[in-house]
Amino acid sequence: MIEKQNFDKVAIIGGGLIGTSIAMSIRKNLLANHVFIYDSNQKVRDKLRVNSISDKVCENLEDTVHDVDLVFLCVPVGSMQEVAKGISSSLKDGCILTDTGSTKNSVINDVKPYINKNVWFIPSHPLAGTENSGPDAGFPELFNGKYWVLVPFYEIPESIINSLKRFLSGFGAIIEIMKPEYHDKILAITSHLPHLIAYTIVGTATDLEDQTKHDVVRFSATGFRDFTRIASSDPIMWRDVFLNNKDAVLEMLQRFSEDLTYLQRAIRWSEGDKLEELFIKTREIRRSIIKEGQDT
Amino acid sequence: MIEKQNFDKVAIIGGGLIGTSIAMSIRKNLLANHVFIYDSNQKVRDKLRVNSISDKVCENLEDTVHDVDLVFLCVPVGSMQEVAKGISSSLKDGCILTDTGSTKNSVINDVKPYINKNVWFIPSHPLAGTENSGPDAGFPELFNGKYWVLVPFYEIPESIINSLKRFLSGFGAIIEIMKPEYHDKILAITSHLPHLIAYTIVGTATDLEDQTKHDVVRFSATGFRDFTRIASSDPIMWRDVFLNNKDAVLEMLQRFSEDLTYLQRAIRWSEGDKLEELFIKTREIRRSIIKEGQDT
Repeated sequence: MIEKQNFDKVAIIGGGLIGTSIAMSIRKNLLANHVFIYDSNQKVRDKLRVNSISDKVCENLEDTVHDVDLVFLCVPVGSMQEVAKGISSSLKDGCILTDTGSTKNSVINDVKPYINKNVWFIPSHPLAGTENSGPDAGFPELFNGKYWVLVPFYEIPESIINSLKRFLSGFGAIIEIMKPEYHDKILAITSHLPHLIAYTIVGTATDLEDQTKHDVVRFSATGFRDFTRIASSDPIMWRDVFLNNKDAVLEMLQRFSEDLTYLQRAIRWSEGDKLEELFIKTREIRRSIIKEGQDT
Repeated sequence: MIEKQNFDKVAIIGGGLIGTSIAMSIRKNLLANHVFIYDSNQKVRDKLRVNSISDKVCENLEDTVHDVDLVFLCVPVGSMQEVAKGISSSLKDGCILTDTGSTKNSVINDVKPYINKNVWFIPSHPLAGTENSGPDAGFPELFNGKYWVLVPFYEIPESIINSLKRFLSGFGAIIEIMKPEYHDKILAITSHLPHLIAYTIVGTATDLEDQTKHDVVRFSATGFRDFTRIASSDPIMWRDVFLNNKDAVLEMLQRFSEDLTYLQRAIRWSEGDKLEELFIKTREIRRSIIKEGQDT
């Protein structure tokens, strides 16, 4: 059992699914004395006040991070640079700064130039989420039993990294350390490409004539429905992910397209053995996942 | 409330997920006096005897359908022709013959030539299933609340169609009538293409180097896992589906590939607005599905 780490003051930038879940989880697990939250959208801030999940909803970035011990950036990865600029001069010495973006190389490139050497910047990514977004989507158990990847990329004292690890363990998260490039590659195949494909096939269906589209909706339970769930995720967040993990996504997409073309050809020429061979192989991966306890 | 229709004797050819679920549902809902089942695989027949879900496990096709009022063909669509040949001369006059194949044009082409005019052949397709297969995969509630599509394609008395409808309603299924071509088109986009894509992406992942593949399994919860579930479905059944709904699958695949190439190009050239526009549009389909009560 890892001892819980209490920080006195924690700030959260971004009041969406991840930001609000962090706030709720801190409160539920008594992990900090004060939690401040901020969102650039006035309506979201109003909502955050009504939901009352933090000690204070701040009106600007500077006030949010002022005198704070730990800061979470929970904004779409395309907004990280702007936020980094905005908090740059207000972070206190010794503060730990992390983020929850789905791409790590881009966040490092965007944020690092604005962070002075007295602040510990440890990028991270909780592998948790739902297809819902916005200030009402959060819940305190979101990270329980889920991986949370830390991506330290320069010399940081072990004790500092450990204090962040212990804090996140307090959410029930399982902590992993990874290099940014490797993170971006693994996420490209496990998350980014599946989302891109789901968006595509749902898009293909929306272009069908009206009666067909209506029946696609009615008979969606036969496989399509799983894709629509994935393809209802936050549009801005995902736009930014694809633009900010371009190289890894395009590489995986290229491999995928080649493999799909191979199957397309096998179907056209009625090469059943090729199809069967692949379909048997893919069962093995499913068995590995069940064995790893990642699904039942 | 539709009145239940009892047939005296019902035969099921094929002891997989669908066949065994039909047998179990008939027994649970007291829909027939006698249920006979057959599978071409000796090991499956042995298993069916142990599981004891029917009145008799037969040793050949002829005995199974002899003197029976309703016959279900629950074999992969690539085996329909062979089974039709095998039962052809043993079906009694006035018997209703149906099947549960995922493609309908091909089944009609394969089965029709062997069925004499005193037998009522009404192809059908229950839109129900799981990723599990084999004689142990069945359960009696599989069809409860699910669509079951009937595809009558020649003149059949209303009373005959109604008796099959009532019988299937006894499983809790919702009956739909459709033309074969339309069925094959709708299933191509809602079921066949999603399965093909899931098989492909899981296949792409299996070709990664070992360490990466291991981590793909560990971090699969981020989207990939849903695809592995779909891609663990019965290989033979799905091989046959793609080979027997070739035209509709290839047409949908062509559209999908064009749409994916459009997104690929948008990513490469950082055209965020094009991505965002699609991602907003796809949310609407999800909302329609929730509204239709097809998911929560």
